[in-house]
Amino acid sequence: MTVDFHHRLASVASEIEDVLVTIFDVATTPPVPARLLGAMRYAVLGGGKRLRPFLVVEAARLLKGDLTTALRAGAAIELVHVYSLAHDDLPAMDDDELRRGKPTLHLAYDEATAILAGDALQTLAFETLADAATGTDAAMRAELVRLLAKAAGGAGMAGGQMLDLEAEGRFEGASELSAQAIAQLQAMKTGAILSCAVEMGAVIGRADAPTYQTLLSYGRALGAAFQIADDILDIEASSAELGKATGKDAGRGKATLVGLWGVEKARAELERLTGDALAALSGFGAEADVLRAAARFTADRRK
Amino acid sequence: MTVDFHHRLASVASEIEDVLVTIFDVATTPPVPARLLGAMRYAVLGGGKRLRPFLVVEAARLLKGDLTTALRAGAAIELVHVYSLAHDDLPAMDDDELRRGKPTLHLAYDEATAILAGDALQTLAFETLADAATGTDAAMRAELVRLLAKAAGGAGMAGGQMLDLEAEGRFEGASELSAQAIAQLQAMKTGAILSCAVEMGAVIGRADAPTYQTLLSYGRALGAAFQIADDILDIEASSAELGKATGKDAGRGKATLVGLWGVEKARAELERLTGDALAALSGFGAEADVLRAAARFTADRRK
Repeated sequence: MTVDFHHRLASVASEIEDVLVTIFDVATTPPVPARLLGAMRYAVLGGGKRLRPFLVVEAARLLKGDLTTALRAGAAIELVHVYSLAHDDLPAMDDDELRRGKPTLHLAYDEATAILAGDALQTLAFETLADAATGTDAAMRAELVRLLAKAAGGAGMAGGQMLDLEAEGRFEGASELSAQAIAQLQAMKTGAILSCAVEMGAVIGRADAPTYQTLLSYGRALGAAFQIADDILDIEASSAELGKATGKDAGRGKATLVGLWGVEKARAELERLTGDALAALSGFGAEADVLRAAARFTADRRK
Repeated sequence: MTVDFHHRLASVASEIEDVLVTIFDVATTPPVPARLLGAMRYAVLGGGKRLRPFLVVEAARLLKGDLTTALRAGAAIELVHVYSLAHDDLPAMDDDELRRGKPTLHLAYDEATAILAGDALQTLAFETLADAATGTDAAMRAELVRLLAKAAGGAGMAGGQMLDLEAEGRFEGASELSAQAIAQLQAMKTGAILSCAVEMGAVIGRADAPTYQTLLSYGRALGAAFQIADDILDIEASSAELGKATGKDAGRGKATLVGLWGVEKARAELERLTGDALAALSGFGAEADVLRAAARFTADRRK
């Protein structure tokens, strides 16, 4: 099972890489300026587990949805994820130097290029979803755009990053956050896009209403588990293992449940959430084993 | 005619303002963090001629398209325009202090908030277009998303801003641009979104292929004229008249046709382009007078 899962994860990541390469090739007619395209490719290609695309593809596959559509939607959600990393890494934001084992985008290029490349990656994500090239029907394309925009915007990922900066005490009036407020912040900052990935798969698989709700519950639990696991890793893993800076959350005053509760209680909560994710899938048979393994992987990963 | 035009421009601007206010109200359920929403509203509301929305609405009206859809699409294109202004004004980009007569977003708030608010405004634009609330059919919604993304992305607005920064000599290997290269840069940076506005109106009006091409020609000529007029204004108008910094293009080494040719030759080119825009509309009767006036306004405006 575990071997199968890692094989499947790597296999989908490879397919996503191919789709992303194709998207950039198409993006060059009419031409994207070389420096901008170079920065976009630098940020996107050749790195990352592609967990969000994996969730789109596997949720769609579970429901026998169209896999070509799922791969394009997966590529689109990865473009949004990468744009957010590039902007979060900027000096005015988290000021990070290492991402996926390489210098961050603004160090490899410069700040202006990193801002613009992030902007253009977001745009490219929506262009990819709206594109009729795969033959995906228009209703599905429009719904995928709507879902991704809702998850990425001010009430989702971008809003979560705003709350995260506020929690660092950057602006006047910041105060210590409760566990509930931290959970809400993280549900927005990381959870929304992860559960959006599962939702997009459900849309592509034309899920009926109960199945949609089931997958939504799974996605939300997995999204919450992901962030706690990430925060534990920030404390316990080395920078070389993760390919990004570690141990910075505490130094920066980032609001994390691990910081509030300690590692032991956070691990218990992580277990509980993983159990919720697995429980949501209880109506499925072996065909959902990949999604079950994804929930366990999310909790147990070491990088 | 002129009085009518200014009345119509102000009237559409007022309707767009109402739609934008509604979009922000809806965006608060689920809640956008107050600081982020405040920054988004600060950047968007209460300013600007709303020329891009005006072109969407008037092109749609010419073809008897649905005006509710046109107003929402107009609001979406304005959100993209404003996000680009907020990011272009950042210290790492053009480092501007004044926009629409107010301190730029990063000065009114801070850099991190300005980056995030710009990001979230772009997302909100696509969410607005994909939203089924107006009853717009899915094929039209998906096509509007595709058009706006194409115009805003790396081969359009964001790409044009990249070329503009390169032309300033910021990066190694920059060289003086030919008139053709400057025209290409400007067609991407400002022209693409302006002609996209007209195209969106054509889509909403369900234009047949020849009418679509006609309006596209009009939009492209108007877009090119707009930038030359803007560059002349940068030289001739005062900062107080424009509500933004002026005279900065030359100091900054921005590539403009006015800088290359001088004002007189640039004015002649502006006349020629305005003539092209009017000629494109020659198959229409008085029902296209508003678009004709928009082309003249674009060339003659004093702010």
